[in-house]
Amino acid sequence: MRRHEIPDVVIRRLPIYARTLRALSESQVQSISSEELGERIGVTAAQIRRDLSFFGKFGKQGKGYHVATLESEIARILHLDRRWDVALVGYGHLGRAIARYPAFEQHAFQIAAVFARNPDQIGQEVGGVVVLPPECVASVVNELGIQIGIVAVPAESAQEVANALIAGGVRALLNYAPQVLKVPDDVWVREVDPTTALQSLTYYLDDEPARPTTIGRQHPPEAADDR
Amino acid sequence: MRRHEIPDVVIRRLPIYARTLRALSESQVQSISSEELGERIGVTAAQIRRDLSFFGKFGKQGKGYHVATLESEIARILHLDRRWDVALVGYGHLGRAIARYPAFEQHAFQIAAVFARNPDQIGQEVGGVVVLPPECVASVVNELGIQIGIVAVPAESAQEVANALIAGGVRALLNYAPQVLKVPDDVWVREVDPTTALQSLTYYLDDEPARPTTIGRQHPPEAADDR
Repeated sequence: MRRHEIPDVVIRRLPIYARTLRALSESQVQSISSEELGERIGVTAAQIRRDLSFFGKFGKQGKGYHVATLESEIARILHLDRRWDVALVGYGHLGRAIARYPAFEQHAFQIAAVFARNPDQIGQEVGGVVVLPPECVASVVNELGIQIGIVAVPAESAQEVANALIAGGVRALLNYAPQVLKVPDDVWVREVDPTTALQSLTYYLDDEPARPTTIGRQHPPEAADDR
Repeated sequence: MRRHEIPDVVIRRLPIYARTLRALSESQVQSISSEELGERIGVTAAQIRRDLSFFGKFGKQGKGYHVATLESEIARILHLDRRWDVALVGYGHLGRAIARYPAFEQHAFQIAAVFARNPDQIGQEVGGVVVLPPECVASVVNELGIQIGIVAVPAESAQEVANALIAGGVRALLNYAPQVLKVPDDVWVREVDPTTALQSLTYYLDDEPARPTTIGRQHPPEAADDR
């Protein structure tokens, strides 16, 4: 079991607070109450006050939070006031989409190394970075001092890739593979596998038989199922 | 606040249990203790027993769980014993990667409708589905009885897209946009935005200045930063 002073669920909410505050700041809003902030984010005011209380005192009773100050404080807490280099392993459809994802650069995450197994892709250039073979993961990650890795390979290779990234010094992993990664206690993983996410959403759905799919579909569903 | 008998965090673990049990079943393992299962998944045996206790009695004292039975029970609880149609809105790099994601089909999620704003993409065919314009979202989703939507558009359009999907009858959303979606109480959202995930991971990392990036990078970092 990991021990950390502040619950991870609180840490996971902070980027949403920071993002909402930034939008407010860009709209020239100077101060906001926890009630208004909660309304925008979809959490209660009490939740916001409780979450922020882990990090000190923000805002004044009856005056609310100073938007720009709270935003920069949260960014500082999350270490977002700097650029972070990221290593991407996997360069299929998903890996290529990740390498070109504009929001990373907007938020100062830079894909600084890309690794692919396919020999045709090795040596290709993406965003100023040359695609390297998987054998180089640990040494390149170590050489560049990269602390963040993205696992965008099939489930069968995911643990091996994670091991190589961690061996090189990575301590934070974004995992797109439908595979639970075994990592040391000082390594943090965020699961972003869409299949697992969908598989938990269906719990909440009406379990009626799917209607036949026709609009926009060129082949009958029977033929599609045979693919 | 949503009210539901079973905590969502439990529901989110169930697909991982099901997946692990399926792998065991494929390896001809017939029964397993909660300790062994927990070891494979990275949770405690007590956690597994507590999670499963929400759904009834599984396994026998001292005999462990029957792997195939527990797997099919969890699949039934999650409504995974059927095909689910999914509507995808957004057909940029990310949307195209999602449309071609092999794991969806392997797990009986079928991209049954795709929507794009770009006129060049409308009318294109992907996996037997024709890309349609965004004005059609609500009507097509309704016509096809689709309950699951994937939001793969920029943050600015995400709420509008979610509204259209929900108007058409979608009750479960996978959200790739860095934008908190406001949804009715009977709609469930899973956030899979990688930027937010990265922004919470950096909290745990050493906040040392990034080292200069050289290996595999063709331009000096200064030039890259100007992009």
